[in-house]
Amino acid sequence: MLVQSGFFTEADGEPVAVENAGGKSEVLLICEHASRRLPERYGDLGLSEEALSSHIAWDPGALAVARLMSKSLDAMLVYQRFSRLVYDCNRPPESPSAMPDASEVFRIPGNENLSQAEKSRRTAALYLPFHGRIREEIVARWARGERTVLVTVHSFTPVYFGTKRPVEIGILHDTDSRLADRMLEAAADTHLYRVERNEPYGPADGVTHTLEVHALPAGLLNVMIEIRNDLITDETGQGVVAGFLTGLLRESLASVQ
Amino acid sequence: MLVQSGFFTEADGEPVAVENAGGKSEVLLICEHASRRLPERYGDLGLSEEALSSHIAWDPGALAVARLMSKSLDAMLVYQRFSRLVYDCNRPPESPSAMPDASEVFRIPGNENLSQAEKSRRTAALYLPFHGRIREEIVARWARGERTVLVTVHSFTPVYFGTKRPVEIGILHDTDSRLADRMLEAAADTHLYRVERNEPYGPADGVTHTLEVHALPAGLLNVMIEIRNDLITDETGQGVVAGFLTGLLRESLASVQ
Repeated sequence: MLVQSGFFTEADGEPVAVENAGGKSEVLLICEHASRRLPERYGDLGLSEEALSSHIAWDPGALAVARLMSKSLDAMLVYQRFSRLVYDCNRPPESPSAMPDASEVFRIPGNENLSQAEKSRRTAALYLPFHGRIREEIVARWARGERTVLVTVHSFTPVYFGTKRPVEIGILHDTDSRLADRMLEAAADTHLYRVERNEPYGPADGVTHTLEVHALPAGLLNVMIEIRNDLITDETGQGVVAGFLTGLLRESLASVQ
Repeated sequence: MLVQSGFFTEADGEPVAVENAGGKSEVLLICEHASRRLPERYGDLGLSEEALSSHIAWDPGALAVARLMSKSLDAMLVYQRFSRLVYDCNRPPESPSAMPDASEVFRIPGNENLSQAEKSRRTAALYLPFHGRIREEIVARWARGERTVLVTVHSFTPVYFGTKRPVEIGILHDTDSRLADRMLEAAADTHLYRVERNEPYGPADGVTHTLEVHALPAGLLNVMIEIRNDLITDETGQGVVAGFLTGLLRESLASVQ
């Protein structure tokens, strides 16, 4: 439908991807920053290949981990097929960081001085279908009397503005910390990773938008997971992290209400 | 569609009503407790005629005031056609007060010991279409690059658990008080009504659900208005209150961003 609207080309395809739609788990996995792909209409946004393949364009490794978790939990996964450089689906349309003209040390020429009309086009093409699809699934489960547990999967860069980040896995939450608390308890004795609460950033940084939209008003159990991306550069690392997180989630969901 | 599903009869009709759908105002008026009507399948829920016509079933006068505001502002109005005794659309499905078995001094026999299946049926029939319709409108405006200002209209009983309430108009807000602040400033010098912030109750009482679902995550300007129902028992009172509130809203929207 969106291809027909002319925003996306046939080669682009549609913005929202769903995997394991028939998954039996109450967990709904979300990956907002799964891809560094740009819709053809935006060319390279004036960015170098270095910038376009860096963490400012996507969360490297996050989709791979989310897919492994989707398989082992038998959970549905929804992800965005285009780069957050065009629209960051974990930000509301009003936020300056939804379509930023700078990210860390990079200027983003193709996002400078966007008109209101262009902002609306991107919002309609990328943000609305993505969150619409998530809401549709939650509502369908609600109507069947089934609950949803919302889990978003992200990765972060080990070095930010020149500073190393010691945390390896962040368990993030906003005002509802029920699930995050259990996961942090379950992870307390691990020697595998350095796991911390609301690190390397937290709700005050505006990173919990998806939780705010879908989980908090409805009282759904929820958590946002951040993985340091140097741990998930290959299949082995991705598999170990996914296995660790799946275990934490299973243990936590068995005891939380 | 819901009539065809067998939950509602032909005489019941559909749960969500929309008026002035083409209204030009950015204001979207919501009235969750507009009606004391019960779907036929629930009979009288075991309640007396006194209880069924009291404020526990609906917000007397609120719809009349909202309609007058809809006309003078040229604003779209969405309201629930059935009583909050069956499902209170200003509460999430998980809340015990969504389908309460007691309200103030009344027991509600027809709501005692509801099965999970019955709760899901009511949620699907009353809550989901109502909030789905509101979201649909907000999303359609977003896609056109137009913003929405969310205004919910309620009334409250002058005597609650035997105690008189001196406040006449409450301007309620949750974490985003931009619009409420302006309305309270604009009302500061009035001799017409006693206007107060977050009275006779506020967000801690769980009454801001509609704002939480639709306005807060998206950053939409929003306010919840509570009118003491003895002020709006007839057309004259309704007209004066509606005129006062329309003036407050116009003045406030002109200066808030």
